[in-house]
Amino acid sequence: MKVGIVGLGLIGGSIGLKLKDLYDNMVIYGYDIDDDSISYCLKNKIIDVKFDEEFISELDFLFLAIPVESIKNQLSHYLNKISDKTLIIDLGSTKFQICNSVENNQNRKNYLAAHPIAGTEFSGPNSATKDLFDDKVMILCDTEKTDPNLLLDAKKIIKSLGMSIKTMNSKEHDKHIAYVSHLSHISSFMLGKTVMDKEDDEHAIYNMAGSGFESTVRLAKSSPEMWSSIFVENKKNIIESLDEYISNINNFKKLIEVSDQKTLNDEMRRINGIKKILKGIN
Amino acid sequence: MKVGIVGLGLIGGSIGLKLKDLYDNMVIYGYDIDDDSISYCLKNKIIDVKFDEEFISELDFLFLAIPVESIKNQLSHYLNKISDKTLIIDLGSTKFQICNSVENNQNRKNYLAAHPIAGTEFSGPNSATKDLFDDKVMILCDTEKTDPNLLLDAKKIIKSLGMSIKTMNSKEHDKHIAYVSHLSHISSFMLGKTVMDKEDDEHAIYNMAGSGFESTVRLAKSSPEMWSSIFVENKKNIIESLDEYISNINNFKKLIEVSDQKTLNDEMRRINGIKKILKGIN
Repeated sequence: MKVGIVGLGLIGGSIGLKLKDLYDNMVIYGYDIDDDSISYCLKNKIIDVKFDEEFISELDFLFLAIPVESIKNQLSHYLNKISDKTLIIDLGSTKFQICNSVENNQNRKNYLAAHPIAGTEFSGPNSATKDLFDDKVMILCDTEKTDPNLLLDAKKIIKSLGMSIKTMNSKEHDKHIAYVSHLSHISSFMLGKTVMDKEDDEHAIYNMAGSGFESTVRLAKSSPEMWSSIFVENKKNIIESLDEYISNINNFKKLIEVSDQKTLNDEMRRINGIKKILKGIN
Repeated sequence: MKVGIVGLGLIGGSIGLKLKDLYDNMVIYGYDIDDDSISYCLKNKIIDVKFDEEFISELDFLFLAIPVESIKNQLSHYLNKISDKTLIIDLGSTKFQICNSVENNQNRKNYLAAHPIAGTEFSGPNSATKDLFDDKVMILCDTEKTDPNLLLDAKKIIKSLGMSIKTMNSKEHDKHIAYVSHLSHISSFMLGKTVMDKEDDEHAIYNMAGSGFESTVRLAKSSPEMWSSIFVENKKNIIESLDEYISNINNFKKLIEVSDQKTLNDEMRRINGIKKILKGIN
């Protein structure tokens, strides 16, 4: 099998590692705008060959693991160059605008919109691990627009990564993911900012911060380039989620202001229900 | 040594477990408003005897590990009943108002204000572990008001729990901790609320939430009673921190609205500096 990976960061690198581990006859063509990442992946056998567009028609799969804005800008270009047997799978965290950008492309059926619910706050190919996708979910969007046979092959390779598959339409995907993922990142970045702005003496943070702060602020270590691109691509849904988040904080603040402990307790007890939901994730 | 523990939750239970493990001649008197917690601690040898006020004058230390509002209400009462050799140590997450409540008590020197930067999102004595305090920080406040000999003894027992000690004044403590701890809890509770309100179908959360959401929302599992009490006791500082947090989110939202990716990137790159600070915590 011949697989191309454009974007050799955490996700792209981890796919390379896992596929090399799974298949003996796997040739991986990898590309990144950062030459060092290509060298690192060649040296560490995450990829076999530097990807060049002249190889594109030979590929079985081409994974795009680059920021969502770049996917939107490059997907048509790649889709116009592939052969009939190749399936392009993008792995961006937003889906609607990307799908929309190739809606009328003659090769639309050779494209599959995917979003792996997997990742860490670390980035770059040196963070890649072959078990990143174990027991994780891959969301596939608008699958009715993908060629059924290519879709079957894609599901096979996704399952071989260790993932289960859920399908939904790209518009719904972007709406839900704004709440469940994108909002977490913004709340975490803003927590980090608020504390750093206040505590110009870092030692005060060292001494007073416990594992609670550490966990809540973890996502503030995430890649700026990846996330600024996501925030702008999914801005409508994200702004809606932020407005609700801010409104909830303002209401909670009012309860604190008037020392309404009973309502604060009732509110938090209801939110404690998240325990049950988190158990479902594990 | 004879030690009393009022409040047999995560913190009180963990102190009992650790002290029983450390000292052969340790008798622990424990009390909780929940009879089941007392039975659990007796059965699991976290405490030796149910605490009764008749024992109070025999104690070397009396730890108060109850919600901060209850500490404020009960501290004077206990302080009026102890003998000269007893030191009362409260373990609440706010310090200024508690210290203020006994400012003019004749036995003020028999009291030490402490805050262990240790805990998990779980509560109750069945969450207690004897290693909860290993390598954690205990903040001591307004130590100049505590009898120097009793303070020395306290430092000894705190270090034996595995903790290092930092000192600061109670007013400063409450200001900093609002940012570094209390704000994390509110941001996490509100994230949980925003997502739960939106996603009435829990399966959407199961399928789409990854480890990022899980980590950011972890503190939303925390005890409502403990935290509503803290929020109200430290309301002035917490409201200040919330106002700054909301203002930061609103500014970030505006950058998303106008798709200003450059400034978003610059902002997030600066906040990434939290990595360095978090390394200091570990």
